[in-house]
Amino acid sequence: MSLPQNKAAEVKPRAFERFVPVDHTRVAFDGGFWQSWSETVRSVTIPTQHRRLEEEGFLEVLDFEKPPSPLVRPIQPSGLSMQHFFDSDFGKWIEAASYTLKNHPDPDIEAKIDAIVERLEHGQMPDGYLNSWFIRREPDKRWTNLRDLHEMYSMGHLIEGAVAYFEATGKRRFLDVMIRAVDHIIDTFGTEPGKLRGYDAHEEVELALVKLYRLTGDPRHLKLATYFVDERGRMPSYFDEETRRRGENPADYVYGTYAYSQAHMPVRNQTQVVGHAVRAMYLFSAMADLAYENDDPSLKHACDRLFDNLIGRQLYITGGLGPSASNEGFTREYDLPNTTAYAETCAAVALGLWSHRMAQLDLDSKFTDALETILFNGALSGISRDGEHYFYENVLESHGQHRRWKWHYCPCCPTNIARFITSLGQYFYSAKRDEIAVHLYGANTAELEIQGQFVRLRQETSYPWDKDVLLALGLVAPTRLTFRLRIPGWCRNARLWVNGEQMDLGASLEKGYAVVNREWVDGDEIRLTFEMPVERLYAHPAVGEDAQRVALKRGPVVYCVEETDIGTEPQRLRISADTNLTPRFDETLLGGAVVLEGEALEADAEDWGPTLYCNRPPSLKGRTFKAIPYHLWANRDEGAMQVWLTEK
Amino acid sequence: MSLPQNKAAEVKPRAFERFVPVDHTRVAFDGGFWQSWSETVRSVTIPTQHRRLEEEGFLEVLDFEKPPSPLVRPIQPSGLSMQHFFDSDFGKWIEAASYTLKNHPDPDIEAKIDAIVERLEHGQMPDGYLNSWFIRREPDKRWTNLRDLHEMYSMGHLIEGAVAYFEATGKRRFLDVMIRAVDHIIDTFGTEPGKLRGYDAHEEVELALVKLYRLTGDPRHLKLATYFVDERGRMPSYFDEETRRRGENPADYVYGTYAYSQAHMPVRNQTQVVGHAVRAMYLFSAMADLAYENDDPSLKHACDRLFDNLIGRQLYITGGLGPSASNEGFTREYDLPNTTAYAETCAAVALGLWSHRMAQLDLDSKFTDALETILFNGALSGISRDGEHYFYENVLESHGQHRRWKWHYCPCCPTNIARFITSLGQYFYSAKRDEIAVHLYGANTAELEIQGQFVRLRQETSYPWDKDVLLALGLVAPTRLTFRLRIPGWCRNARLWVNGEQMDLGASLEKGYAVVNREWVDGDEIRLTFEMPVERLYAHPAVGEDAQRVALKRGPVVYCVEETDIGTEPQRLRISADTNLTPRFDETLLGGAVVLEGEALEADAEDWGPTLYCNRPPSLKGRTFKAIPYHLWANRDEGAMQVWLTEK
Repeated sequence: MSLPQNKAAEVKPRAFERFVPVDHTRVAFDGGFWQSWSETVRSVTIPTQHRRLEEEGFLEVLDFEKPPSPLVRPIQPSGLSMQHFFDSDFGKWIEAASYTLKNHPDPDIEAKIDAIVERLEHGQMPDGYLNSWFIRREPDKRWTNLRDLHEMYSMGHLIEGAVAYFEATGKRRFLDVMIRAVDHIIDTFGTEPGKLRGYDAHEEVELALVKLYRLTGDPRHLKLATYFVDERGRMPSYFDEETRRRGENPADYVYGTYAYSQAHMPVRNQTQVVGHAVRAMYLFSAMADLAYENDDPSLKHACDRLFDNLIGRQLYITGGLGPSASNEGFTREYDLPNTTAYAETCAAVALGLWSHRMAQLDLDSKFTDALETILFNGALSGISRDGEHYFYENVLESHGQHRRWKWHYCPCCPTNIARFITSLGQYFYSAKRDEIAVHLYGANTAELEIQGQFVRLRQETSYPWDKDVLLALGLVAPTRLTFRLRIPGWCRNARLWVNGEQMDLGASLEKGYAVVNREWVDGDEIRLTFEMPVERLYAHPAVGEDAQRVALKRGPVVYCVEETDIGTEPQRLRISADTNLTPRFDETLLGGAVVLEGEALEADAEDWGPTLYCNRPPSLKGRTFKAIPYHLWANRDEGAMQVWLTEK
Repeated sequence: MSLPQNKAAEVKPRAFERFVPVDHTRVAFDGGFWQSWSETVRSVTIPTQHRRLEEEGFLEVLDFEKPPSPLVRPIQPSGLSMQHFFDSDFGKWIEAASYTLKNHPDPDIEAKIDAIVERLEHGQMPDGYLNSWFIRREPDKRWTNLRDLHEMYSMGHLIEGAVAYFEATGKRRFLDVMIRAVDHIIDTFGTEPGKLRGYDAHEEVELALVKLYRLTGDPRHLKLATYFVDERGRMPSYFDEETRRRGENPADYVYGTYAYSQAHMPVRNQTQVVGHAVRAMYLFSAMADLAYENDDPSLKHACDRLFDNLIGRQLYITGGLGPSASNEGFTREYDLPNTTAYAETCAAVALGLWSHRMAQLDLDSKFTDALETILFNGALSGISRDGEHYFYENVLESHGQHRRWKWHYCPCCPTNIARFITSLGQYFYSAKRDEIAVHLYGANTAELEIQGQFVRLRQETSYPWDKDVLLALGLVAPTRLTFRLRIPGWCRNARLWVNGEQMDLGASLEKGYAVVNREWVDGDEIRLTFEMPVERLYAHPAVGEDAQRVALKRGPVVYCVEETDIGTEPQRLRISADTNLTPRFDETLLGGAVVLEGEALEADAEDWGPTLYCNRPPSLKGRTFKAIPYHLWANRDEGAMQVWLTEK
């Protein structure tokens, strides 16, 4: 098998822009906002997560010789368990760790990964089947319940881990294991006679297969991903069929509807984002991948409608998504409760995956605006500043009952945010032919090759705390290049200079990206200024939960008020419409961040008396208050928190 | 065994007022607000509930000869099931039905009750043990898990049913069955050597035993109730002990803390209302009963503290209680979310039981105010106007997803609200020596004997729709009597006339009751006027969910706005602080009710655009709106509802 790394040389005309992300290994966070986050994740998060996987028995599932311990439980009477997707957790951990290895070799981490791979290889069944729990516990039940048991979801994460590990180290063993596993899936599922026409209810393998295809170039890998996406939602449902084969009644399905898994209708017919949020985002990511690889406008069209539905009607201001715990997902449009927001970290990360993929197809800043929103808010809130405590749910309001935890009984989120941050560099730049797109801002140095030319890009900026970005070019020789620079959707006043000369931004804007085409020489400078006054934002009137509430945002950063800063529950504050809010960089706050300070009123209980209800409103007294970036909440003393503040 | 009906002749001095409720059979709702509700419950609710109990297989648990059907399942791996408290459901149904039989004999209902009693008697074990599910399914496991399996809770409801049925019909069979069951409990539990020192985690049998004692006069019945209440919360916990006996680990308790069952400390030490709301209310009802029967100020004192905690910090404005679904109960003080309010119907009914008992001990209107609050709001909302649809949870805000159901997998609430309404008369009046207390207002005719004198009381009123109450006395001979007339706590301007002469209300008020002592003659009239302007109520500043919100109340009736009346989600309304709100009796609304009408602003989405968030608030347009009594919501077209309206 050959492993072509670059399949750019295709001939047929393409329907879409085909940007290719600049690999994360080429982008170094050598200062600024992301430096400390990426170092913390590499040096603290990755090692402690391996420790947790060991302590919590996740790796014990790989002790194939030993009799199953009580930890590796049989399927519960509910039919559900976390056990059978333990593979996904160490798959994601391997992926996260691998992204650090190229630039920061670590023999200890490599040895830990090799040990897992050896055990996986040892456990793999002769026909290629691979799911540790099934192999140990219920080998006869494999592939009998794609609706509930996540076998391909788990394999998908192992595939992503194997690809990342190969790319980091060049070691093929894990990759070969997973290619054999994929061969087995190809032998088992598909439209050909004798195969099962199934697909996994929890999407993930689809996008993993595209990733594998991009590495291997094996068309069967792309074809399998395409089959899974095309087959999804066909009626009568495969899930009904397999349920009956198990002697069970499809009507007893605990989630009631296959919309839970976006399998209620063919994907191209779907117009509203429904069901389990992570599943939805993984599916849509795969749809974007297949639109790209198969040059399929029908999938791009479906993605566009779904994206607009999500952004326009179902997304928290933080980029969190999926308001409901009961289905870990979506309910009705405009249902965005704050205190009970589920808004799983994984879902925000997965929206990052999807929106990034959409931007490669169609360079529109609405996609990269969403990416930036989750990056500074609803995804980053999922990990603590110390790098070893997490949120699964990312509420927008708390009375102090929400605390970060060291581990979770369903620990999908920690490794997801870890792999996102360790691969963060790839989200900054894309390139095609003689074009470079700059999606994100933040201090970094990137080195890339474009049309055979070495290009060095250096962003000097304190973004998102500061409005100014200097982009310095390093070139070996003068080169004609088109830069496409994202002008953030939140910014109402952006300016752009090239070597000191201000450009007409309005004239150069295409889908939210400023286009600058010229011959560049070494040392050229692009300067961008994104005015970022404190914004007071209001929710659509259909969002009942946010009636008479205001959210504070500065640049891409959403703010919240924490009890620990103001000495009372923020729910007692009333913000006046004309309050002046002043940003100030507070270097003492968790490594340094811009805080907002201003005047507010506080509902006073002193003269209220012992009753709970009274026929006059609480008296209000003036006071100052402080707001901090939402992603930094719950890193200090416990207490209440609020994003949507009451306006008076 | 003798059955003394009247044990009033005791000699020792008592610590408390000892009012005795006037039996519900002596109070006829011959007009006014409660007439149609009580007729509906008797003629529709009682028969349909028996049909549901049959259809849903609840009575099938009594087919002791047949092998258990799949419906009668073994204990689930979770250790939990509804099956083992099916007895409680038909126990409560028998109680509810019995309350109607004296004044409305119904051979068909009586035959249905007799059939159940016969089957129960047949199934009862030779030693008196009685729980249908255990006898059929797990006889060896009886009394092994008082923490989870509700055996005494179920027996308690059967005892209440048996007492009610005996009092209605004079038939002793059911009563004898339950006395034998109580004998068995007495043989099994207690402090004596050889007995188990257990008590049921779900309180109920305690208050049932006091009820039984009041009928039988058997001091062992009172002693057993006293033992259960005194034993509760003793450490080390009996629940730990029995859990270890089952070979399980007490640390695995699914609810984490015995506070769930108010068993975390001795009851006299408890100061905050915690845990499962219905359990708490049943316990406190029993504590009030035992304070009364045992003349025990320590229990009264504990009840007072707990009552003040509940009313002052944990009660919805509707009288709903227990905000959280996860423990069906309390969380932290001032946690009163609206859309996720659990506020179980049973808990509101049970608060009615407790507050009514407190008022007999200590005639303070704070207790009967609470009783009236649940009566017109948070309990009555649990049953539909047609008498055969129910709410288990009584939210204070909905986006339209809450609909009433015909039956429930845990159908404790329907029979609870049914027995409450069929026995409602008993809550109106109490008597002691030469005193009559009038707790509630609403058209009715009551006949009682006091010191051997026949007294007829006739309330002529449209209360709660109208402010005027005429209380006409019927007497055989002139009689000196003290009337104690509740002046509702919500009323800021009440007036009282006796035979046309206005009294000085301020001077006559004792703990919220106006005291009128004089010699009365036949035809005397007491007239009361309770001014009931529309009140705008605000919640304590610590209730974050109600910040900048206003609730509307008129008299004892809390209002809500339903989408079906205003054509949009009420969450879009903004109420101005100076809006005029006009009450109007709408005879077309569900049998007739006072509605409130006024001006409001509506947040408009027309000029909003496709985005979810915007840097200017929604524009507001003027409109009218209507509010209806909360207890009538969800009886018409489905749609959103809101009690706490946003104030602008």
